[in-house]
Amino acid sequence: MNTPADRPVLEELDAAECLELISPGGVGRVAFDDGEGPTVIPVNYTVEGTAVIFRTSLEGRLNQSLATVLTGAAVRVAFEVDRIDEERHEGWSVLLRGGGEHLPDHERPTGASVEPWPGGDRPAYIRIEPQEISGRRLGHR
Amino acid sequence: MNTPADRPVLEELDAAECLELISPGGVGRVAFDDGEGPTVIPVNYTVEGTAVIFRTSLEGRLNQSLATVLTGAAVRVAFEVDRIDEERHEGWSVLLRGGGEHLPDHERPTGASVEPWPGGDRPAYIRIEPQEISGRRLGHR
Repeated sequence: MNTPADRPVLEELDAAECLELISPGGVGRVAFDDGEGPTVIPVNYTVEGTAVIFRTSLEGRLNQSLATVLTGAAVRVAFEVDRIDEERHEGWSVLLRGGGEHLPDHERPTGASVEPWPGGDRPAYIRIEPQEISGRRLGHR
Repeated sequence: MNTPADRPVLEELDAAECLELISPGGVGRVAFDDGEGPTVIPVNYTVEGTAVIFRTSLEGRLNQSLATVLTGAAVRVAFEVDRIDEERHEGWSVLLRGGGEHLPDHERPTGASVEPWPGGDRPAYIRIEPQEISGRRLGHR
């Protein structure tokens, strides 16, 4: 049992720390409003500068919603990445908030890092350019 | 390198499978609109029936937003849980969508499972009663 004294504490991270933490890529979660409220999809992503890039299918209801939403102008999305050790109650989370957009063909990155893990067509490349980057680390003093 | 033939495939899960997968509790992510677009906070949660329960602080900007948002009536939130093996590209994700609400005092569950991991006050108990449960498993055939 944790006592209050040995409980982990939350510490705010600055934008540079956040970008470093998410730079290896992997699994993140994109949150957006599909017209019926917030929804969340896990995707595998890569980082290019300060932007997050991932691919998504136009198959499936959630993915279709995402693609449809992002054809609108200035759509706000959030992108969350965390690595939390559930045994030790330690880890970090990073949140990017900003506009999501389809990448035009000539800006599409190549390379395995943005290959989507599931099979099937994943034609839409999405880029999130954060206007806001925040993060927190949970750890023991 | 994966070839298309050995890529993992996505399979839809039914509500019962989803609830079973999330029933042990642990870390999930709550998504809500704070008035400036979608945002996401990782929390540790417990399951009671079909509802997800977690506690949140009134400290910190995101947490304050969440608490404020949930004082409104019929606020739509999403709650996402996933366990994805980044090496094997296998795992599952579950998404609950529904109304989030503060739990009244007499309905607050007791027990370590809803003790928040970070120290500090976590006075608000939040319950999400899903109107919609969906999930997907990513695996190799």
